[in-house]
Amino acid sequence: MNKFNLAEKFGLFKDYWSPQIVAELNGQYVKLVKFKGDFVWHHHDAEDELFLVVKGSMTMNFRDRQVVLSEGEAIVVPHGVEHKPFAADEVHVLLFEPKSTLNTGNVRSERTRESLPRI
Amino acid sequence: MNKFNLAEKFGLFKDYWSPQIVAELNGQYVKLVKFKGDFVWHHHDAEDELFLVVKGSMTMNFRDRQVVLSEGEAIVVPHGVEHKPFAADEVHVLLFEPKSTLNTGNVRSERTRESLPRI
Repeated sequence: MNKFNLAEKFGLFKDYWSPQIVAELNGQYVKLVKFKGDFVWHHHDAEDELFLVVKGSMTMNFRDRQVVLSEGEAIVVPHGVEHKPFAADEVHVLLFEPKSTLNTGNVRSERTRESLPRI
Repeated sequence: MNKFNLAEKFGLFKDYWSPQIVAELNGQYVKLVKFKGDFVWHHHDAEDELFLVVKGSMTMNFRDRQVVLSEGEAIVVPHGVEHKPFAADEVHVLLFEPKSTLNTGNVRSERTRESLPRI
């Protein structure tokens, strides 16, 4: 039941594309992730995902459109929907999603992180 | 699958202590709430709640201590734990909690909001 500070937590990150867990509630995780560049196309069979941009901006690519998210903007990607995050420059993102969520969903790639540290 | 902008949504608020739903995922709601002053002591039997301060600052009162949350800080209040939010000045807060969560938990008061609008 300790508070956490987003800027402080993001300051501890060393690697891009490596989500870390900052909180757990109701079977869900709050994760933070810092990234730059292109991710892989994937979907999650069962889990919806919320992306909230805390700093910077990113593009969420869908097969039929792109959504640009600036600081203070968020989107829910429903389960089953293919998506590919991209950021031209470093972006800081907060994620809300079930504990079972694998970052690359239905795909295994060099970006896959099987177990996530707590930050 | 539309994005939302936190500052824009908070700009639509008219009343304090009236949470509004901005997103739904995995049986949970993302809610926004603007408030000032004192809430009521309460707990939630089954639901953990996340409070993230988007603008301003607030104090989360527990029976045995107080936690001050500034902009960009968050706390999870576990189910069963009595708490009472307070803000000396207007604060903008994002909540993440199960859909079943009643704002005043085990208590009915003038602050209770039985059904929440979507903003």
